[in-house]
Amino acid sequence: MEFVVIGGDAAGMSAASRARRLMPDCKITVLEKTLDVSYSACGMPYNIADPVREIDDLVVRQAVVFREKQKINLLTGRCATKIVPGENMVKIVTLTGKTTDIHYDKLLIATGASPIIPDTPGFDMEGVMGLKTLDDGRKIKSYIKEKNVKHATIVGMGYIALEMSEALRERGIDVAMIKPRPEFMPRMDRKIADVIKDTLISNQVALHPGHEIERIEQAGKTFKVVCADLTLETDMVLVAIGVEPNNQLAVDAGLKTGIKGAISVDGNLRTSNEDIYAAGDCADAIHVVTGRKTWIPLALRANRAGWAVADNIAGKNLALPGVAGTSVFKMFDLEVARTGLDFKDALDAGFNPAVVTIKSRSRAHAHPGASQIHVHMIADKASGKLLGVEMVGKEGVAHRINAPAVALHAGMTIDEFLQCDLAYAPPFSPVWDPMLTAANQLLKKL
Amino acid sequence: MEFVVIGGDAAGMSAASRARRLMPDCKITVLEKTLDVSYSACGMPYNIADPVREIDDLVVRQAVVFREKQKINLLTGRCATKIVPGENMVKIVTLTGKTTDIHYDKLLIATGASPIIPDTPGFDMEGVMGLKTLDDGRKIKSYIKEKNVKHATIVGMGYIALEMSEALRERGIDVAMIKPRPEFMPRMDRKIADVIKDTLISNQVALHPGHEIERIEQAGKTFKVVCADLTLETDMVLVAIGVEPNNQLAVDAGLKTGIKGAISVDGNLRTSNEDIYAAGDCADAIHVVTGRKTWIPLALRANRAGWAVADNIAGKNLALPGVAGTSVFKMFDLEVARTGLDFKDALDAGFNPAVVTIKSRSRAHAHPGASQIHVHMIADKASGKLLGVEMVGKEGVAHRINAPAVALHAGMTIDEFLQCDLAYAPPFSPVWDPMLTAANQLLKKL
Repeated sequence: MEFVVIGGDAAGMSAASRARRLMPDCKITVLEKTLDVSYSACGMPYNIADPVREIDDLVVRQAVVFREKQKINLLTGRCATKIVPGENMVKIVTLTGKTTDIHYDKLLIATGASPIIPDTPGFDMEGVMGLKTLDDGRKIKSYIKEKNVKHATIVGMGYIALEMSEALRERGIDVAMIKPRPEFMPRMDRKIADVIKDTLISNQVALHPGHEIERIEQAGKTFKVVCADLTLETDMVLVAIGVEPNNQLAVDAGLKTGIKGAISVDGNLRTSNEDIYAAGDCADAIHVVTGRKTWIPLALRANRAGWAVADNIAGKNLALPGVAGTSVFKMFDLEVARTGLDFKDALDAGFNPAVVTIKSRSRAHAHPGASQIHVHMIADKASGKLLGVEMVGKEGVAHRINAPAVALHAGMTIDEFLQCDLAYAPPFSPVWDPMLTAANQLLKKL
Repeated sequence: MEFVVIGGDAAGMSAASRARRLMPDCKITVLEKTLDVSYSACGMPYNIADPVREIDDLVVRQAVVFREKQKINLLTGRCATKIVPGENMVKIVTLTGKTTDIHYDKLLIATGASPIIPDTPGFDMEGVMGLKTLDDGRKIKSYIKEKNVKHATIVGMGYIALEMSEALRERGIDVAMIKPRPEFMPRMDRKIADVIKDTLISNQVALHPGHEIERIEQAGKTFKVVCADLTLETDMVLVAIGVEPNNQLAVDAGLKTGIKGAISVDGNLRTSNEDIYAAGDCADAIHVVTGRKTWIPLALRANRAGWAVADNIAGKNLALPGVAGTSVFKMFDLEVARTGLDFKDALDAGFNPAVVTIKSRSRAHAHPGASQIHVHMIADKASGKLLGVEMVGKEGVAHRINAPAVALHAGMTIDEFLQCDLAYAPPFSPVWDPMLTAANQLLKKL
């Protein structure tokens, strides 16, 4: 058996490692176009925040371990340029331009996703950067240091943009954030979005929603970010308006793609070609709430899907049940978490959503040090089922979201969730956990 | 409708308040033998830790609110001495010894639980105290202050004992803990128990397991706690060897009691008499994992059961699904949490338990500030079902336990739990949450 993996990060290296454990005699080759494999991309904002730490701290397992201990034929600096499904063959080009090709019995496409960079003039300049690979992280860190960056502009106001706003403020850099649409975090509940917005403002982050960038201009040692009615002078631009799946190889090979261009896979992570699998940020998934295809590129799913590919190749026939879209991020002193559907998702999926947003406390009545916690909860009026939860607060949010995530996997109704026996002690929550308070309020609307 | 409640804390006042909301015209009477109602008993250790705060800070809702706003006939200092089911009547004695009686259409027994005080000589002295009521808390606080307590001995090593060890150390009091059985926390996983033990020792708490107390003697201004081969000199003794349900009224009235003497109730909280309900720490419950009766006196259940009694009296026919025994406590810098069955519970319930204990990290690879987190997980070999989880760590344990608690309510297998889409961000967990790592290891043993 020859197993070839394109892409050497979360999904790819998880698949390669597990394939080795399951199939000691399998020939396993990983093609990685950069020189980095197996790193924590999600850790980059926190690493960038710290001028002392090396970006290479984020490497989870060294290439030498894969090569020598696991006997994986790990080829870095090798870009797969074409898949030829009829011949079970991948064409490769090296960093020096040499071409070659490799045969596979089973192939995994784990090419990940890339930051969307607009076509707008000036976005191709040095100093205007996205953040996805370890090399992106290196570039940003060295740019900050070498150019002595005092002001940065972040284009976009999503999770990565928000995490990076904290990272840059930590380094003493003034931060402006800009995006075309006027509403701040339009998909989130308004009260929760307001808590996030207030925290940005109190940390001196300048917010400029509702401004479409016309161009970025070089202006001596700095840049001008030019909109119709606003010009920002800045030393560096970080582009964080979202990511898109790296699907080109799959498209060229005639594989089926679907939602947002992600490579379409079945529960076993198999593409429309029976010898080719896809996993990680380039592939789609089933949403456990809707039962429909979704594209939610997140690290846990990438690792899990990588494992499942190895299991399937080894003959285990492992189908993954799907994702709930559970995610969390830290921003200044806030924890922000979500799982399941938001209101618009719920409408789009044909549900009749009832919503509630409650404000509660992170600790019990009379326990010192409590802070506010907001819980937004969505249920379907027809079935009574829990559809999604959003939360924000200064403590106890990150792990709290996992309880409704499990409830979504179990298909629980609000009534069933409300009856769950959750933990209580005064330092950690009121007797009625804020999630139960939300469920109780929501039940009245069903 | 005349609704009478015996006991004015969590279950009783929850029931009375909700009954008022559901039945504006109902005559509601609450009999409370102390002068305190509606307080956070669980908050007492934290309050005792702070010499400045008043114990009365723990009152959640003032008696005047129940009386004037909710028109509840709240009678404090009134002890119910006898229930006469044939006459739907409760006999009462006041603090001054006056007797009277009151008629009910529906009665709720919410008498709670009391600390077990051994028959051993000396346990009846002033300065040898249990902790359950607000008055107990007052007594302990004033005793510490007035006697200028420098050394305290805690009898028992359960949750309350451990919480109190921190509270007393916070006040600069030397603490010794003593109990008859040699093993520290015998029902917990050994590794998790060791983490707790090490933390006690590093906080200068002297542990003396394996010592049966023969007597406590007064010795001038101090006490001697005398065992066969150990004598502790101490200024104060806190007895925290467990609690027992206050079932006397129920027993005398011929109501059915069961496990550990708790008043036996059905899913609707009804006792063996159709006009009499029981809720809170005096009543039993169904365990969601075993489907059998259990007695786990905890605050959330008490509140929830109080509500359910009101719902049932109002004609809603609300059956509670049961408890998972989810609990958490803080001790020094540790969070300790559990849900479901422990190993012995699992054996007793007829399961064939497989167990695993893993050590993981509270934050991602390379994220600064991470600490250890231990997860102990139990599953049934026959069905593959999750049976219980224990955890200990310095952060992220308290709320993490709620995810497996929900899984227990849903009856999930380990495999199903392992596939749950949990939240990940580097400040909060590794990509594979420690619970998923435990589930993955446990799956190999099934």
